[in-house]
Amino acid sequence: MAVIPVDLAGRSYEVHVGPGLLTRLPELAGPLLRKTAVTVVADANARRHWGPALDEALRASGRTALWYEVAPGEASKSWSELARLTDWLLAQGVERGDHVLALGGGVVGDLTGFACAILKRGCGFIQLPTTLLAQVDSSVGGKTAINTDAGKNLVGAFHQPALVLADLATLATLPPRELRAGYAEVLKYGVLGDADFFDWLTENCAKVLELYEKPLEQAVATSVAAKARIVAEDERETSGARALLNLGHTFGHALEAEAGFSDRLLHGEAVALGMVLAARYSARRGEISEDAARRVSAAVDEAGLPSEIPALRLSCTGETLVSHMQHDKKMDAGTLPFVLLHDIGDAYLARDVELADMAIFLTEQLQEP
Amino acid sequence: MAVIPVDLAGRSYEVHVGPGLLTRLPELAGPLLRKTAVTVVADANARRHWGPALDEALRASGRTALWYEVAPGEASKSWSELARLTDWLLAQGVERGDHVLALGGGVVGDLTGFACAILKRGCGFIQLPTTLLAQVDSSVGGKTAINTDAGKNLVGAFHQPALVLADLATLATLPPRELRAGYAEVLKYGVLGDADFFDWLTENCAKVLELYEKPLEQAVATSVAAKARIVAEDERETSGARALLNLGHTFGHALEAEAGFSDRLLHGEAVALGMVLAARYSARRGEISEDAARRVSAAVDEAGLPSEIPALRLSCTGETLVSHMQHDKKMDAGTLPFVLLHDIGDAYLARDVELADMAIFLTEQLQEP
Repeated sequence: MAVIPVDLAGRSYEVHVGPGLLTRLPELAGPLLRKTAVTVVADANARRHWGPALDEALRASGRTALWYEVAPGEASKSWSELARLTDWLLAQGVERGDHVLALGGGVVGDLTGFACAILKRGCGFIQLPTTLLAQVDSSVGGKTAINTDAGKNLVGAFHQPALVLADLATLATLPPRELRAGYAEVLKYGVLGDADFFDWLTENCAKVLELYEKPLEQAVATSVAAKARIVAEDERETSGARALLNLGHTFGHALEAEAGFSDRLLHGEAVALGMVLAARYSARRGEISEDAARRVSAAVDEAGLPSEIPALRLSCTGETLVSHMQHDKKMDAGTLPFVLLHDIGDAYLARDVELADMAIFLTEQLQEP
Repeated sequence: MAVIPVDLAGRSYEVHVGPGLLTRLPELAGPLLRKTAVTVVADANARRHWGPALDEALRASGRTALWYEVAPGEASKSWSELARLTDWLLAQGVERGDHVLALGGGVVGDLTGFACAILKRGCGFIQLPTTLLAQVDSSVGGKTAINTDAGKNLVGAFHQPALVLADLATLATLPPRELRAGYAEVLKYGVLGDADFFDWLTENCAKVLELYEKPLEQAVATSVAAKARIVAEDERETSGARALLNLGHTFGHALEAEAGFSDRLLHGEAVALGMVLAARYSARRGEISEDAARRVSAAVDEAGLPSEIPALRLSCTGETLVSHMQHDKKMDAGTLPFVLLHDIGDAYLARDVELADMAIFLTEQLQEP
């Protein structure tokens, strides 16, 4: 098991990565679970797979789980679900010093974290991520949110968990497509800040995706450590350091918006393709070689993730994609910062991208290769 | 004009207190208003009285106000109004670096502040409080919230404004009953931490309530300075210092709950009576003299505020009031801290109050004197 600290002034916490952590929850959470009744928010799939084990572990420590089920899917990150969950937590008598458990993927973590951010102006919570995406990305760092008519994650809070248990055993029940989508975020940490990790991943991609224990743990722990470093440096996305985590995301969000935020294109798939586009756009600006851009594209291909826009079968123009970008919450006084590459392992925030030029680039990318 | 700084690490701001500040908004807010379109959230009364002056001041500085109206009354601090306002702000393209104006009393300030706390995980806002209660209490310190079925202010965030302009001219249009209710919070600062201010108020109560400029400014500025000191010491209510601001509130909330959070009993009226009850309960514990308790009661009487529970014509028991207290968000692992008095001007947090004893005390207080 790996233990990665997230160092934040006054609110540091640990991320544990390893197999079988859910059954060790009472021991690992210790005094965070101060009452015998423990509220658990879970999506239906996570509860079906891991509910009995968690129930049993809590029972063995003299506690009882009070379950709240969230429907799987982004639609649960809504105003109405936020109100329903928060009201339920209030009805259970959850107090500021209590810790709510969030068992599931990013949807459950984002929704539960946000509810805990605003319940009595902030109560505690513990992330129990059961998807690769949630383990390496959304469960760490305290970004919580819901979606609204205006876009994804536009309403939310920064609210750090008190503990994260990334139980690698939970990944065994994940559909392969979701596993690959989560792998996109793993690859992202290599591309944005760690060339050695990128090289290691090009050699170990298959083993990670086949869930070999040691490579999987190394991939998840290295990703979490990278995220923890960046979050500790820039918790509230003010210095620009945290913005690097958005590598591939501005491109990706535009593609997701065009695909209607549906199962046609998973978030991780969009990020994978977005990284390729960021690399190609960087090459177009002469900042990295065409070869480096091809290596990023090849790593995405190898994981079975999309590396070409036409593969998505969208019918849109470069301008349409740019218009989606303009609704990005990072828009600031008319400009949109893009994460681009000086090299593989060396991302930076470009504030000088002309959206007209971006539209031309995307129109080219929309052509069949 | 008085300018009171609220010193918070990295997010300090100023509270300006004086007549005619709304018309000077563009000058005082300066670069906080970085766009020509300025979003203003207001209740219908505040807009009717002060909208034209604000419109004119913004127009004279080359800006335009975009108005959003909130229905007056606590009912607007709801999930549905929060969603409606936040969605509207998103539709206006409000960005993290922008500042939304909140013009009105505590309802508008709490709702707008909360919406700004969660919009894109936090955008700026400026408080323009137009009631005495909001000027001396709710607009300063960053507590924002909505009400839910489970109780008042149980869902919210700590989110500090970037600037507060307490325009004393706005108090001229306030109904006398609301002015008196706000005065209860002024008196509170004397009772909890400043015996000299308490004495000054007993001599100047009438002048303050008749809005004589100098005494009014002194009363508001002294109150704001007291609150700013406490907030700077304990922004998120963790050390216990900020808890002292709840003097009279635990009693008061129970009375408000019994009155159905209606116009039968305004929040400030409940706080006034709650202070009297806190003083009497402190005397009952032998911590202050009966005479000191009578002086608190007399100061409340003099302001035309209720000082006896029977005057409220509630039909309830001491146990009923205690059961309301048990839903207080300050309940922690089964105990409820009460703000009591060592002396006038010297409040403290008592964690040893037995709720059974409290019920007996309240049953006595429910008898006609």
